[in-house]
Amino acid sequence: MNANGMLESQRVRAEIRAGRITGTSRGLAHGFVQCNLAILPKAYAFDLLLYCQRNQRACPVLEVTDPGSPVPKKLAPTGDLRTDCARYAIYRDGVRVEDRTDITDLWRDDLMTFLIGSGISIDGALEAAGVPTHKDRWVLRTTIPTEPAGLFSGDMIVTMRWLSPQQAIAATQITSRFPFNHGAPIHIGDPALIGADLKAPLFGPPVPPTPEGIVPVFWACGVTPQSAVENAKLPFFIAHAPAHSFISDMPSSALMNP
Amino acid sequence: MNANGMLESQRVRAEIRAGRITGTSRGLAHGFVQCNLAILPKAYAFDLLLYCQRNQRACPVLEVTDPGSPVPKKLAPTGDLRTDCARYAIYRDGVRVEDRTDITDLWRDDLMTFLIGSGISIDGALEAAGVPTHKDRWVLRTTIPTEPAGLFSGDMIVTMRWLSPQQAIAATQITSRFPFNHGAPIHIGDPALIGADLKAPLFGPPVPPTPEGIVPVFWACGVTPQSAVENAKLPFFIAHAPAHSFISDMPSSALMNP
Repeated sequence: MNANGMLESQRVRAEIRAGRITGTSRGLAHGFVQCNLAILPKAYAFDLLLYCQRNQRACPVLEVTDPGSPVPKKLAPTGDLRTDCARYAIYRDGVRVEDRTDITDLWRDDLMTFLIGSGISIDGALEAAGVPTHKDRWVLRTTIPTEPAGLFSGDMIVTMRWLSPQQAIAATQITSRFPFNHGAPIHIGDPALIGADLKAPLFGPPVPPTPEGIVPVFWACGVTPQSAVENAKLPFFIAHAPAHSFISDMPSSALMNP
Repeated sequence: MNANGMLESQRVRAEIRAGRITGTSRGLAHGFVQCNLAILPKAYAFDLLLYCQRNQRACPVLEVTDPGSPVPKKLAPTGDLRTDCARYAIYRDGVRVEDRTDITDLWRDDLMTFLIGSGISIDGALEAAGVPTHKDRWVLRTTIPTEPAGLFSGDMIVTMRWLSPQQAIAATQITSRFPFNHGAPIHIGDPALIGADLKAPLFGPPVPPTPEGIVPVFWACGVTPQSAVENAKLPFFIAHAPAHSFISDMPSSALMNP
């Protein structure tokens, strides 16, 4: 808590809400769980919840709000899902048509929000174990099929990190302790074995050739459900813009398995 | 696998299907995950899935079948949910009106089945650690409220075990490694602190006074969602009869966090 009796997560959300923080959430409110958002009409929510259940490693659902409620009462009782992300991506018929900093005008009584655990949340635990998290990290498509549910299907999206062998071991140990936040790696080594698309990461330039002595390590990524929702070409859908996650009041340590 | 190339779980399901095994599933097909069943019309399935998400410790959903499908293709691809439980409990308007050994006649195209992890599945791991599982064990109502979702709400049902202090420690350690099967205890010690109803266990006679030197230890119980469904007084609902669980082909060790 700070001098005003606020959690750092609450302070950062207030800054975002006021438009004083506009950039990425990466590195903000260290130690609090950050969440990917999927906001969609109730008519599609059952299929998405079932999709997430069937693909739990990629889609760790931490909370689903009631229809029309913009408050994640478990994860951030003082939060407002319409204003507290720095940037939202608005999709119509599966196409990202615009970004906004506030979706109050678009809110509807039938909207439900899925708050899905982001791997960013455990960067602190990885850093503490000597695993760097701010470089040599990519988000990639693969050819690993997810388990379909109703309208939703698609291949798994993964996070790939370049690590030293010792870092790879430490990262496997650390992430195994977060079974509700993507858990252990799903693959180690040759990217081709899971069809990882190194030429076209979801963000940034192509991945250079793997350096000598480096082990690529792969985790299921929380962008997977967003990709499945894009594939379904829903008439209307809102997500956080990539790297602009919702910051909750839950300590990352609360996700750690004892 | 046995001489016929069948898993022990498959052999036991075949015996149940043929009517040659009619009793409890406790102790059968050691080492395979046993599941509680909640079978209900699709119209109610979203609320139940959301209820389970919000109360994950009590309601660890391992699979949800597609509407009309009697096959849990992930947990038991050769299984049949209409015949492979030794006994089913049929509810109408929230009342258990009859038990059956086969529900083929009652099957409908809109039925979905929730397979929910049962604590029975980890009895083997507890026994191996010196924690007895076949005696001094009760299923009790409490006054711990669950998080409601749509139609479903109610208090948490728990499993209470009487253990020695050393067994209580070992059992806490072991069950913590099964975060997707009720996980660690939710309480240790005085039953009154969680309003555990010792006078009326869900099965069997009242609980005697706690003996000297014994520590009561409590886990969230997979009967909780069944209780919530009963509270909702759904027109039609089918569950496994208590202690007559569905035996899956998943090894219990697959649920163990590394």
